Amino acid sequence: MKGFEKITVKGGARTELHDALRLTGAEISINELPAGVGVPFVHSHKQNEEIYGVLEGKGKVTADGKEFEIAAGDWFRISPSVKRQLSAAADEGVRYICIQVKENSLENFTAGDAEIS
Amino acid sequence: MKGFEKITVKGGARTELHDALRLTGAEISINELPAGVGVPFVHSHKQNEEIYGVLEGKGKVTADGKEFEIAAGDWFRISPSVKRQLSAAADEGVRYICIQVKENSLENFTAGDAEIS
Repeated sequence: MKGFEKITVKGGARTELHDALRLTGAEISINELPAGVGVPFVHSHKQNEEIYGVLEGKGKVTADGKEFEIAAGDWFRISPSVKRQLSAAADEGVRYICIQVKENSLENFTAGDAEIS
Repeated sequence: MKGFEKITVKGGARTELHDALRLTGAEISINELPAGVGVPFVHSHKQNEEIYGVLEGKGKVTADGKEFEIAAGDWFRISPSVKRQLSAAADEGVRYICIQVKENSLENFTAGDAEIS
């Protein structure tokens, strides 16, 4: 229906939602890295803040050279210019969401943006 | 560290990330509804697109009066003006993420916004 789009994500290395759900304010991906595997490059962003949520497993993220352990239930924000790389743990894979949004784009939210019927 | 914020979400009725992670482009909440329970109001938004991801369990969402079954793995987008209400199933709770972003705020993403080091 107009204004509502829905899909089912069945797993896999990477599922991107922007085109599938016709998103206009974010790109969202659901990602899996097997044990011992890392994203094969370090990257930063020009405009976009990234928010990650770890759904299952564990691993680590390197942010401007500093390492942080990550595990299911962890959520973290990375500013655009920070150089980042995510890896699964040596003995366990990791499944995570990555949300890209334009930094400073949110004006109001929740009570400030909602209208109750 | 500057440009990196991290928390662990331990569960509960609702956890909001905007202030905890100093988000600037989104509000993200992690929500749980027990079996038989629904959000106690219908709402729409002024500016914000909402994207929902179902983490566990099942339920339904009503969008402008039309009902959709939802279950773990489902992701859906709702345009600002659509009147929505989410409920858990009668016999099973539901755990879900809700992401609020300003409609049409994303300019570039992934390869179009990233810089590889």
